[in-house]
Amino acid sequence: MTQLSATGRTTIGRHRERGRTDPAALYEVLDEALICHLGFVADGTPVVLPTGYGVLRDTLYLHGSVAARPLVVGPTQTVCVTVTLLDAIVLARSAFHHSMNYRSAVVFGVPRLVVDPAEKLAALQAVTEHLAPGQWAATRQPTRKELAATTVLALSLDDASVKVRVGPPIDDPEDVAAGGWAGLLPVSTGWSEPVTAPDVPAGTPVPDHVTGRGA
Amino acid sequence: MTQLSATGRTTIGRHRERGRTDPAALYEVLDEALICHLGFVADGTPVVLPTGYGVLRDTLYLHGSVAARPLVVGPTQTVCVTVTLLDAIVLARSAFHHSMNYRSAVVFGVPRLVVDPAEKLAALQAVTEHLAPGQWAATRQPTRKELAATTVLALSLDDASVKVRVGPPIDDPEDVAAGGWAGLLPVSTGWSEPVTAPDVPAGTPVPDHVTGRGA
Repeated sequence: MTQLSATGRTTIGRHRERGRTDPAALYEVLDEALICHLGFVADGTPVVLPTGYGVLRDTLYLHGSVAARPLVVGPTQTVCVTVTLLDAIVLARSAFHHSMNYRSAVVFGVPRLVVDPAEKLAALQAVTEHLAPGQWAATRQPTRKELAATTVLALSLDDASVKVRVGPPIDDPEDVAAGGWAGLLPVSTGWSEPVTAPDVPAGTPVPDHVTGRGA
Repeated sequence: MTQLSATGRTTIGRHRERGRTDPAALYEVLDEALICHLGFVADGTPVVLPTGYGVLRDTLYLHGSVAARPLVVGPTQTVCVTVTLLDAIVLARSAFHHSMNYRSAVVFGVPRLVVDPAEKLAALQAVTEHLAPGQWAATRQPTRKELAATTVLALSLDDASVKVRVGPPIDDPEDVAAGGWAGLLPVSTGWSEPVTAPDVPAGTPVPDHVTGRGA
């Protein structure tokens, strides 16, 4: 990918100045966010569900139970995967010019059912490592039975768009002249102290890759 | 609302034990989250976009430019509004049992275009106050021209479901017996220091309702 595509559905409608065409912007959003919202159509109705994901090169992977509806219907239709980072509330002097600073990626495509065992395992590793870096090597790998109970879908990143708002509020000149405070209230996302499960023997140390996250 | 409905589309498929029927659970999610993901169908394709929202009694309000596509097509079709709070990454001893603790609300309905001026203003106040409590009274109110440039949609909360995962990882007994650490890595969301806009005169104090948020 040298540049993000702009098919009809990924062409940005309003605020085109917020569009990004550099694939690096797409990967930055996908790296930094933790979950996506997957949209599909069921019985003519749009359905939007939160889920984890992983990225390998130019492919986004979704996973879940073989019985989960989005994974069953996914390969038969175009889906929309949206990933959003909320960076700040934009506090203007006028109610009208309030806004949000955000970075969002929208990916469209017909997912491919992953059947190759090596790709399936690599995809599950990517999904796990995305949510919990260091966990794949630290935990018991999936059994054949567990793999058989898991569906993995692959969605190409070829048809993606990224939209970004940055910077201070933009008020009308007369509101600026009238004075008063305006600015950004940044949203911060981080980690709290790990909570050890009750069935872990006393004295078992919290692994470094868990305690060190975000440090 | 005495109990959340369970129409076909809001009946929870997998992990039914995660369903909540108490409307208080719905309001808690809607109160605590900042943005929603709005799903609609355009040219047969699902589209999922992040946006702000507000809640008054049993109605969720969305707003935006009169030219914004979701607001134009919204009143003509069933939409899906999903609000997600990610509470923790669930770190199991097996890759298979990794999960997330979350609270998510899903609302379906055909939005109603708000035309009554009083309801429109109240809805915009609700949307503003949801993202930025205290701002409505602190900022210049919308002009007639600004109101005319803004579309507001009302979505009933009658057809909503809430799904919640809480608690530690649930590993298989043989993995627990094998030892090793497992637990939760909680996600924390908060606010960083306000950033004053460059066009604010030096010495203008940051309002108390901004500095005091989340304190």
